Amino acid sequence: MTSPDIVFDYERGERIGLDEAVFCAGKGPAQISAILSLAAERGRGLLLTRLDADGLAQLPPDQARALDYCVMSRTAFFGPLRPVTSRGRVAIVAAGTSDAVVAREAERTLRHAGIEASLILDVGVAGLWRLLERIDEILRFPVVIAVAGMDAAIASVLGGLLRGTIICVPTSVGYGAAEAGRTALNAMLSSCAPGLLTCNIDSGYGAACAAIRILNSFPDAQQDPSRGS
Amino acid sequence: MTSPDIVFDYERGERIGLDEAVFCAGKGPAQISAILSLAAERGRGLLLTRLDADGLAQLPPDQARALDYCVMSRTAFFGPLRPVTSRGRVAIVAAGTSDAVVAREAERTLRHAGIEASLILDVGVAGLWRLLERIDEILRFPVVIAVAGMDAAIASVLGGLLRGTIICVPTSVGYGAAEAGRTALNAMLSSCAPGLLTCNIDSGYGAACAAIRILNSFPDAQQDPSRGS
Amino acid sequence: MTSPDIVFDYERGERIGLDEAVFCAGKGPAQISAILSLAAERGRGLLLTRLDADGLAQLPPDQARALDYCVMSRTAFFGPLRPVTSRGRVAIVAAGTSDAVVAREAERTLRHAGIEASLILDVGVAGLWRLLERIDEILRFPVVIAVAGMDAAIASVLGGLLRGTIICVPTSVGYGAAEAGRTALNAMLSSCAPGLLTCNIDSGYGAACAAIRILNSFPDAQQDPSRGS
Amino acid sequence: MTSPDIVFDYERGERIGLDEAVFCAGKGPAQISAILSLAAERGRGLLLTRLDADGLAQLPPDQARALDYCVMSRTAFFGPLRPVTSRGRVAIVAAGTSDAVVAREAERTLRHAGIEASLILDVGVAGLWRLLERIDEILRFPVVIAVAGMDAAIASVLGGLLRGTIICVPTSVGYGAAEAGRTALNAMLSSCAPGLLTCNIDSGYGAACAAIRILNSFPDAQQDPSRGS
Amino acid sequence: MTSPDIVFDYERGERIGLDEAVFCAGKGPAQISAILSLAAERGRGLLLTRLDADGLAQLPPDQARALDYCVMSRTAFFGPLRPVTSRGRVAIVAAGTSDAVVAREAERTLRHAGIEASLILDVGVAGLWRLLERIDEILRFPVVIAVAGMDAAIASVLGGLLRGTIICVPTSVGYGAAEAGRTALNAMLSSCAPGLLTCNIDSGYGAACAAIRILNSFPDAQQDPSRGS
Amino acid sequence: MTSPDIVFDYERGERIGLDEAVFCAGKGPAQISAILSLAAERGRGLLLTRLDADGLAQLPPDQARALDYCVMSRTAFFGPLRPVTSRGRVAIVAAGTSDAVVAREAERTLRHAGIEASLILDVGVAGLWRLLERIDEILRFPVVIAVAGMDAAIASVLGGLLRGTIICVPTSVGYGAAEAGRTALNAMLSSCAPGLLTCNIDSGYGAACAAIRILNSFPDAQQDPSRGS
Amino acid sequence: MTSPDIVFDYERGERIGLDEAVFCAGKGPAQISAILSLAAERGRGLLLTRLDADGLAQLPPDQARALDYCVMSRTAFFGPLRPVTSRGRVAIVAAGTSDAVVAREAERTLRHAGIEASLILDVGVAGLWRLLERIDEILRFPVVIAVAGMDAAIASVLGGLLRGTIICVPTSVGYGAAEAGRTALNAMLSSCAPGLLTCNIDSGYGAACAAIRILNSFPDAQQDPSRGS
Amino acid sequence: MTSPDIVFDYERGERIGLDEAVFCAGKGPAQISAILSLAAERGRGLLLTRLDADGLAQLPPDQARALDYCVMSRTAFFGPLRPVTSRGRVAIVAAGTSDAVVAREAERTLRHAGIEASLILDVGVAGLWRLLERIDEILRFPVVIAVAGMDAAIASVLGGLLRGTIICVPTSVGYGAAEAGRTALNAMLSSCAPGLLTCNIDSGYGAACAAIRILNSFPDAQQDPSRGS
Repeated sequence: MTSPDIVFDYERGERIGLDEAVFCAGKGPAQISAILSLAAERGRGLLLTRLDADGLAQLPPDQARALDYCVMSRTAFFGPLRPVTSRGRVAIVAAGTSDAVVAREAERTLRHAGIEASLILDVGVAGLWRLLERIDEILRFPVVIAVAGMDAAIASVLGGLLRGTIICVPTSVGYGAAEAGRTALNAMLSSCAPGLLTCNIDSGYGAACAAIRILNSFPDAQQDPSRGS
Repeated sequence: MTSPDIVFDYERGERIGLDEAVFCAGKGPAQISAILSLAAERGRGLLLTRLDADGLAQLPPDQARALDYCVMSRTAFFGPLRPVTSRGRVAIVAAGTSDAVVAREAERTLRHAGIEASLILDVGVAGLWRLLERIDEILRFPVVIAVAGMDAAIASVLGGLLRGTIICVPTSVGYGAAEAGRTALNAMLSSCAPGLLTCNIDSGYGAACAAIRILNSFPDAQQDPSRGS
Repeated sequence: MTSPDIVFDYERGERIGLDEAVFCAGKGPAQISAILSLAAERGRGLLLTRLDADGLAQLPPDQARALDYCVMSRTAFFGPLRPVTSRGRVAIVAAGTSDAVVAREAERTLRHAGIEASLILDVGVAGLWRLLERIDEILRFPVVIAVAGMDAAIASVLGGLLRGTIICVPTSVGYGAAEAGRTALNAMLSSCAPGLLTCNIDSGYGAACAAIRILNSFPDAQQDPSRGS
Repeated sequence: MTSPDIVFDYERGERIGLDEAVFCAGKGPAQISAILSLAAERGRGLLLTRLDADGLAQLPPDQARALDYCVMSRTAFFGPLRPVTSRGRVAIVAAGTSDAVVAREAERTLRHAGIEASLILDVGVAGLWRLLERIDEILRFPVVIAVAGMDAAIASVLGGLLRGTIICVPTSVGYGAAEAGRTALNAMLSSCAPGLLTCNIDSGYGAACAAIRILNSFPDAQQDPSRGS
Repeated sequence: MTSPDIVFDYERGERIGLDEAVFCAGKGPAQISAILSLAAERGRGLLLTRLDADGLAQLPPDQARALDYCVMSRTAFFGPLRPVTSRGRVAIVAAGTSDAVVAREAERTLRHAGIEASLILDVGVAGLWRLLERIDEILRFPVVIAVAGMDAAIASVLGGLLRGTIICVPTSVGYGAAEAGRTALNAMLSSCAPGLLTCNIDSGYGAACAAIRILNSFPDAQQDPSRGS
Repeated sequence: MTSPDIVFDYERGERIGLDEAVFCAGKGPAQISAILSLAAERGRGLLLTRLDADGLAQLPPDQARALDYCVMSRTAFFGPLRPVTSRGRVAIVAAGTSDAVVAREAERTLRHAGIEASLILDVGVAGLWRLLERIDEILRFPVVIAVAGMDAAIASVLGGLLRGTIICVPTSVGYGAAEAGRTALNAMLSSCAPGLLTCNIDSGYGAACAAIRILNSFPDAQQDPSRGS
Repeated sequence: MTSPDIVFDYERGERIGLDEAVFCAGKGPAQISAILSLAAERGRGLLLTRLDADGLAQLPPDQARALDYCVMSRTAFFGPLRPVTSRGRVAIVAAGTSDAVVAREAERTLRHAGIEASLILDVGVAGLWRLLERIDEILRFPVVIAVAGMDAAIASVLGGLLRGTIICVPTSVGYGAAEAGRTALNAMLSSCAPGLLTCNIDSGYGAACAAIRILNSFPDAQQDPSRGS
Repeated sequence: MTSPDIVFDYERGERIGLDEAVFCAGKGPAQISAILSLAAERGRGLLLTRLDADGLAQLPPDQARALDYCVMSRTAFFGPLRPVTSRGRVAIVAAGTSDAVVAREAERTLRHAGIEASLILDVGVAGLWRLLERIDEILRFPVVIAVAGMDAAIASVLGGLLRGTIICVPTSVGYGAAEAGRTALNAMLSSCAPGLLTCNIDSGYGAACAAIRILNSFPDAQQDPSRGS
């Protein structure tokens, strides 16, 4: 049964180049199941975000099985996956282990759109040399997504070293004065390194969409052959 | 006389493609004058931001005269201006009359870097048709800087209509619940339209630097011949 | 058994035209059951709000069965329902799927007072054309309740297009910079469109009460025959 | 000379029934003067808000003389004033002496739109009997604008006594825990009396626009003959 | 077994006239049990606050049985109860049903200290006449504790009508703009009625302690014979 | 000339025992002058608070001369002063030099009501022995007003040593994390010493009014003969 | 199996003298187990923090058994423990019973680094004499960690009495105006006693690391023979 | 003339090793002058902080001349200066030009106490190599004061590279999301590098006092001969 409340915005994909995703937090299994049924009926693929393991377990088994689920990022692909059409354009750099959840949400969102991103994890500023060892690798990407919580110092360090685009994602990692990501957000917004761009807290999805917009802005620059498969 | 406290980071231009600018708010005339002298000595050009009319009036007259000053954006160019090397790549869209100050700071910062941007003013959401009349024009730019205070609704409207990159600048326009730009900032960060990118409040300079980073990321896409001079 | 702590304000209905409702969040099943018994004793109808499915399940079965319960809005009608006495006066417009919960609480509260409202869902600004397609329909209602979370941009868009009364309800939908509805609230309060009116976060009940007050202010204008059943 | 940055939205008056007003705070005398010249050229009337005595003194003398200025509300009418077309529909109730500034801004905005409102001042809750003595008078108005700062308790008291529409305007009166109007705003939004509607802090203009919207929603109910001049 | 970490401050009773109470929120059953054993050993009575039904159920059955527990206020008396030594000095006035929890915590704390207070419930400002009907009764008490959440308007109304001492307790009742009691707290602190005194949010215990301090300040005025049992 | 907007609440003195005071911050010299004229006409005395030296200088010279002005507390008495009727009941204890401004506002407000208070200054916790040396003296007062900014630690220290009533006044002294008095306010509200009562930030006037209420609650205890004049 | 996402920073111990600890909050049992396996493989000891009893119970039994677990501080030592190399240098002073959790986290972190600290519990300011009785003992330690929530007044009292280093740790103990530790944090930062140093809320670990840094700064002063074992 | 309100705490110097300083912000010239007279009478030296140039100009000329004033740090020494007794123990590292004001306040406060500190300016993270070039120099100091505003990233970078004590001072430099130093404060408190210690915003004085406490804790380690003058 399909809920009469579900209204898809399928044209959005064509209009702005970003497929509608299903944000599952706060949605019950019945609602998610109805959305999947509707998408199946119309033969559309879907990206699901913030679907935790409990939510997955409550879906009808055949629908759950049909999902390509990633436990760490809490994302799922439904339906046939678009082939990779862009490589070597986006790196995702994460400061701490706990930031990896958000980093992988960005990676999966990009993959759903046909973009293969490179993940560079655990290069926080507290171990500066680990970051500096990989800086030449990072410098080769035109777009870098920097994921960090707490003080978010890695964003400023990258901002002082990189020429290219830096999309910052604050995370809600940390406690007390980390203020559920608000400190990282404000630190990124007021970075001493100029020209950083910032997304909402924990929004790996939003950062990926922003990267897609940037790549879409320069369609001829989509693929760097020297880094192709 | 040159203050021993001034340390320029001239290599930054080469390293990350963004010249150091002089943020004049909070600096006294003696400090600004010393910086200009030092730049003159070394034959460097400079961008000055947040230099209000009072601050200009307190500079030594010959230094003040040497500045190309814009009263609305409170910016000044010092030294020979770089030629325009990029056109038709960046539009700056501002919602209200009072947002124009920030929009012009972005425009001037881009111009200092050799990028000519197009200004599209007073197209706030309260008069939706004025915005829709110009939407085809806006759609032609790969990078759009959206400047808005208070509810910042124009950012979401653009986000639902544009395929390209959208850099949002919240402004401190408004009173009460506008919370000195914090409401606009939060609205842009939590926009219902995905993939928006946000800068610090009132930071026309920051938005311009971000646009420069994006253009630098795709050097071959720098110039659209159909919109050339 | 009737709790000695329960003091009904039955005259309120006569005095200000709004029946007392039972806000169930934070009340235990014993308390709610006692209130229902007391109302039954006195032959009064009641509106219950924020009664979630768990709370319903913990009520005595005969009391639970006597309720006309709506799972989405978490509201229940107890006792005989007032007939519809007003139609075509109030539209409820909701931006996103998750806002529908609050929109339906408003709809049910109005219905309890004898007012039939029209629901227009999923017309968020990110898909602007979906909203514009229905704008002529919306324009026909003297009172529009606009329900939206996150950036709440739909409130400003409606404010620029509608001549009539607009009651805004911010919702706590969203995460991070959405700040549990505070961003939507502030955006509605500082909208670039003048004359918007705002209720507490998630308060579909409050918005409905405000609409009832407005209709009560103009009793002769209660029913538009051209839109009657 | 007319600034090319000024873009009037004259059609707004027709579209949504609210003339564009000029918010003078943050605008320099040159900007305001240019706006007045443009309006004079096109033969349009204008409402100016937040024009303080200093701002008035800096305008060209002939323009300043042409204004109908009210020092308490800091508003000015420019051009011929619309005749009064509605009476006895709106009361403005203010709690404290300092709230009178905002109350008068509302009164003047209504008057500019042809609506004569009644002012009822200094009826704060700390002197409850003063309010109760006038409650029968207040009850006769379909729309009441309640202006109060600090605890804003008058809004809840009115909400428990009035059947009609109540538009609340929090003011920034008070210090410390009054938090520049934020406490009054929150108290109005979370009032124990249901169905109150709230505007931005200090926004007498916004409250008046909301009242105009409500009156426009019920055009046949515009004039109560029993309360006519 | 007695935990070596427990250090009682028994002399406090003598020193400042307030017995140490055990705040049970955040303490495990083992910790509470050890405190009770220690008190039993030393033959001391104790007041326990914020002990919810679950916490009670987890205590050793004999200790649980030994408690005089009140489910609504989540308080318990341990050991023999002091006789009532003061009557007719303190009234506790609560605005809404949900505030009764905090009101009863104050009542029980006073009772533990030998003071019998009068509870006057459900006299919120939204039903002003209910409050006014009882105002003469309230006026007879030298000390009034006013308990209210959300807008806390009752505190200001009482402040304008009462000559005596008013101790305000904001409660965390309400949602959204009620901000978990912060709005009520700020409204009480910035009341338009002068001379109100305020305690921490939900602190019925703190208000009772303050009332005890006031009564202790005037020992000769402790008992009003005209209101004795 | 008397402004028609001034409405005195003279009966308040009789009703609640607190004379209306004129809060001068935000009032212009014309407004204050009109209030003084009106009071003179009716032969009433007045307390003026927050009247700074500039405000005083702008009053008509004969009115300024008629005031008994205190530059430190920024208060003025107008008209004949009530005789002292109560002594030895209230001590005002201030932590730092900068808190003395607020302490003196409390002292003057009490004096206007005929109550002579004792000032004990500069006994902050950072010099604990200075406070302990005077603790026996402080212990003799039934009511102590504790004035402190920043960490407000003195309130808790007094709360652990005193049996009597403690009225806390947070001050806006300090910078950064002192948050304009919010930190002192919150520290007083959440003191580890039970039964403290708190007023608005910087409200020496409010604390004095609260002390008057407490003394009024126990009229027989008004005067301690052992400390009489 | 070892997760490829785990990247240890083992050199950190050598570089900055602080071993990497595993912050277990937010990590699942699989993640923690993998980290333990990896450490076992490489023969490294580890400190685990914020590992609650539930988390411990979900670990593989042999790994759980291998941990030296402290239920109160929620910390565990894994692998052979470093011998004690420093004594008599650090005291940990805690104000209330609930602060002991954080105090013990600091103690255990220091112990893991070979430093034996002295715990002095329950010496809050509300019982000032208990603190003063032990002040001579406290004065003998060059470094004192002061742990307190709510008003954090003990920090200022110590600051006025001690000559040595004071590291403050605010705790999230308390409710309402305690604001989850923010009030204690701000009070410590704006203490009237100069030279206090502050860590993040509840960060016993951070305070211990800071103490280690200070001891490492003065290696010759590491051990006070007069206080040796 | 000497104000009776001035109470010096001269013994504090002996008791806790920190001389009382005069915080001049908010004090008028008469107050400061009286303090200087009193100190002169008693033959005491004094440190004055936050004395801006205007404040200096308003002092009696002979007193002004007697001060050793530093315009950048707004500090003054009064009376004979203590000789330098410690060198090579404290470095002050500042991120941006605007942070130098606070850095110099720390330097002057240390100098007043006989400690000569080394200033290392303009080594912000946006120009990482400038910092890394000087890291070996910084590593030689047992105590480093890190001064930074906005994102405060330098604190975390230092925390990952240094073994010794790091005292962080957030500054109010920056705008918008820098939130007057609150963002820098929170970033320092929640740094990814463990063991950082933090002072109040802009408190160069507080950081210096903390450094003095640390040096006082280890008196034998006071002077490193290898770094002597």
